[in-house]
Amino acid sequence: MATIDLNSDLGEGFGMWSMGDDPSMLDIVTSANVACGFHAGDSDIMLKTAKLAKDKGVSIGAHPSYRDLHGFGRRPVAGLTASEIETMVAYQIGALQALATVAGHRVTHVKAHGALSNVACADPMTARAIATAIKAVDRDLIWVVLPCSEIERAGEAANLPLAREVFADRAYEDDASLMSRSKKGSVLHDASAIAERVLRMVNDQAVVSVTSKVIKMPVDTICVHGDTPGAVAIARQVREVLEKNGHRLAPFDKSMKA
Amino acid sequence: MATIDLNSDLGEGFGMWSMGDDPSMLDIVTSANVACGFHAGDSDIMLKTAKLAKDKGVSIGAHPSYRDLHGFGRRPVAGLTASEIETMVAYQIGALQALATVAGHRVTHVKAHGALSNVACADPMTARAIATAIKAVDRDLIWVVLPCSEIERAGEAANLPLAREVFADRAYEDDASLMSRSKKGSVLHDASAIAERVLRMVNDQAVVSVTSKVIKMPVDTICVHGDTPGAVAIARQVREVLEKNGHRLAPFDKSMKA
Amino acid sequence: MATIDLNSDLGEGFGMWSMGDDPSMLDIVTSANVACGFHAGDSDIMLKTAKLAKDKGVSIGAHPSYRDLHGFGRRPVAGLTASEIETMVAYQIGALQALATVAGHRVTHVKAHGALSNVACADPMTARAIATAIKAVDRDLIWVVLPCSEIERAGEAANLPLAREVFADRAYEDDASLMSRSKKGSVLHDASAIAERVLRMVNDQAVVSVTSKVIKMPVDTICVHGDTPGAVAIARQVREVLEKNGHRLAPFDKSMKA
Amino acid sequence: MATIDLNSDLGEGFGMWSMGDDPSMLDIVTSANVACGFHAGDSDIMLKTAKLAKDKGVSIGAHPSYRDLHGFGRRPVAGLTASEIETMVAYQIGALQALATVAGHRVTHVKAHGALSNVACADPMTARAIATAIKAVDRDLIWVVLPCSEIERAGEAANLPLAREVFADRAYEDDASLMSRSKKGSVLHDASAIAERVLRMVNDQAVVSVTSKVIKMPVDTICVHGDTPGAVAIARQVREVLEKNGHRLAPFDKSMKA
Repeated sequence: MATIDLNSDLGEGFGMWSMGDDPSMLDIVTSANVACGFHAGDSDIMLKTAKLAKDKGVSIGAHPSYRDLHGFGRRPVAGLTASEIETMVAYQIGALQALATVAGHRVTHVKAHGALSNVACADPMTARAIATAIKAVDRDLIWVVLPCSEIERAGEAANLPLAREVFADRAYEDDASLMSRSKKGSVLHDASAIAERVLRMVNDQAVVSVTSKVIKMPVDTICVHGDTPGAVAIARQVREVLEKNGHRLAPFDKSMKA
Repeated sequence: MATIDLNSDLGEGFGMWSMGDDPSMLDIVTSANVACGFHAGDSDIMLKTAKLAKDKGVSIGAHPSYRDLHGFGRRPVAGLTASEIETMVAYQIGALQALATVAGHRVTHVKAHGALSNVACADPMTARAIATAIKAVDRDLIWVVLPCSEIERAGEAANLPLAREVFADRAYEDDASLMSRSKKGSVLHDASAIAERVLRMVNDQAVVSVTSKVIKMPVDTICVHGDTPGAVAIARQVREVLEKNGHRLAPFDKSMKA
Repeated sequence: MATIDLNSDLGEGFGMWSMGDDPSMLDIVTSANVACGFHAGDSDIMLKTAKLAKDKGVSIGAHPSYRDLHGFGRRPVAGLTASEIETMVAYQIGALQALATVAGHRVTHVKAHGALSNVACADPMTARAIATAIKAVDRDLIWVVLPCSEIERAGEAANLPLAREVFADRAYEDDASLMSRSKKGSVLHDASAIAERVLRMVNDQAVVSVTSKVIKMPVDTICVHGDTPGAVAIARQVREVLEKNGHRLAPFDKSMKA
Repeated sequence: MATIDLNSDLGEGFGMWSMGDDPSMLDIVTSANVACGFHAGDSDIMLKTAKLAKDKGVSIGAHPSYRDLHGFGRRPVAGLTASEIETMVAYQIGALQALATVAGHRVTHVKAHGALSNVACADPMTARAIATAIKAVDRDLIWVVLPCSEIERAGEAANLPLAREVFADRAYEDDASLMSRSKKGSVLHDASAIAERVLRMVNDQAVVSVTSKVIKMPVDTICVHGDTPGAVAIARQVREVLEKNGHRLAPFDKSMKA
């Protein structure tokens, strides 16, 4: 039987500032995307997150971003060359690899953060640059991708191991893209509704768009958020509903090799 | 016959700003200490420097610093815990390792930069924290150390491979420490005098202090500066005088394993 | 009758990160020290804080720091020249002045933050540099100073308007300096004890040291913290006890001109 | 007789890094746009530039940018709200005002830098946000604008004093916008050709586009660059040709009030 992964963006404090309840989330998820210092995170938080993830059997991945601490990596930055995007991503992966090593852990995946991800989903150059960086640093790293996006296409072209991701609490457009956060109804808030929706996604290997269109896609991992009110409760319910319905949760780095 | 290494601090631009004549220096030195983004350097410059070093057969090392872009890492920062220093150093090493991998090169050494080095030379806690970081990331990394300093002691205690370094253009106190840059006569400027001085250091395996005290020490590598006027000419003359006198120059990572 | 001021360090978030409960604190204090972007704060938070302070009749001051976002300005930075400290402080004051103007408010005081304050309390060069900066930008700015420190001496020498400050929840050494946070008992936590202690300070115009030594000093303003658990409750109790005992609270910029 | 202003972007070093030959440029231009720390510049360089400008009778203006030290403010940043742009601009103006005051000088104009300027030329929201910031900080500040752009429209709508600017060495499209730097022929390099072209611009109060279309516009100030090879020589020749042909050079803050 296939397993399913639950991932969350963690380690998103900076210096004296904290964000979210990482210890609680690390009891629920099976993979953590760790901020690498460009939109959030610093070397202390990276080590702490890697150690905690190691202790709890949670896989870790690099969560690279544009250089944008002030905007939390949510502001699209134009004008970067492909090479500049490659080095930016490689730098962040390497930094986390070193701290994972210090923690006795290992980086097994990469997931682009915020605006870098959004831009890459639609822009082949950006998507390819991220793929090139991952492949150049370590071709065994699993890239977490949005199905039907330029990121997935770039990952397939680069022949990287991919984990297809769905979002537990986000509405989808008919083209399988995420509905923009600025639109009404783009983010779901009810824990039970979210958990049932995730169960259907996993059972059907499909998402249902805002117009009720069924979009088939392989579902390797489910993203649950860690930084919103009620985040922990939602994530816990998603996990419980999946387990109650016979799904085994495990990091995708293990599941994909099964 | 033993070889001798020439090292220089390179890759010290940032974004649009450049510093020094790296391509010329990389024709002269055998090891480059590459800034990792905390006092200078960015991912683009790191990749470029790693590639150029690879092409020219020059070894590269991480040159970690305090977080101090504005002060170029020359301002001592107090109040950091040992763990904070460790993660700070590990982060920078890892970032360079990734970019070295992208360049087809490999990080073989570490040398603390500026104020971090100066503080660590006198402060055992800081020195040990750097040693701990290096060892945790990769225990085969060679640590470039100032003989007779706390850095050397911490390196020996950690059982790390060490490269003992002398400075071509800096005056020494009687305790083998570098004379402070704020004192008159602390920095030498005459290329011929510097080259002859380096030759004696290597031949005698000793430095001569300002009071003419001879301080015996193993000399594995000589630091030449790349960011001052006339830097390239001085470095070239140092190399020529050494070669003319029968010394073979080679990166210490190779020489130390011979 | 003289009035007394209550001040607190506010606006200490950055980008997506928040710290403390500023709106509640602004209902209690009469002066706010606003972070200016070097240890915390950004232009959006500065404007928001200035507007809120304006609405609530709270005076605002610049809270300049070393360049140290990662360490929240709590790490002493050495190696700065007097001129570098001056420009660093002037820059931060000016930035807040502009945002205060946008908010329809006005910067009336300056208080050095964290490590910059601690260093300046003991180092005449640093204290004089801050005084020089304040005076050069606007000689009517009131400088909040620790009595008996180098900051107070520099302020008197510069003939700047001064507000003498005591700390509600911090233990004092016999020389009127604050007991280091690293020592046991340096920070008080009981709201009632803190409030009674503040009342005595104001009534007696004196602080009592850890050895029960009474140190006479003028008390113009009382610092209450806004970033610790229970901060709001402590601040509220301090205010209530003072008012119950016949003290009128008002910003020192007004009180000092009375 | 009307005077004409020559402006240049100066103070664009950062910490240890320098850019351009500011002292030479300040002997030639009549107005300096001073970087305020977001794309370049720091408080030390700002003070130094303000002092030097004061000594040489050169007007100074704030040169605000996106937060983008790594990209030198040349990368368009999306996702900022109008309020975020306003505070970002106000912060930078205020910081320079304080340092100008320390230097005994005065900020008389504002000119948006790099990508912020390019975005604002085409995006009314961004242009209006800059106008709002300038007006809120000091409605007497002169805004340097590109004729026929959204910046000019926003300046007129806000009723701000405006200085219309032409670029000495940049090719123009038929709609009066600057030809993108990525296009061939967008930047002119021959000093004599540039100087003659500027003379015609001033005499005719018009620019000639790449298709030889004559676009009439008031010309209050001419931008000469300070950071390219030969920059000083080009700027000097522009000035000489203008003076030889009877034009008097003076800062626009004085000329506009004449």
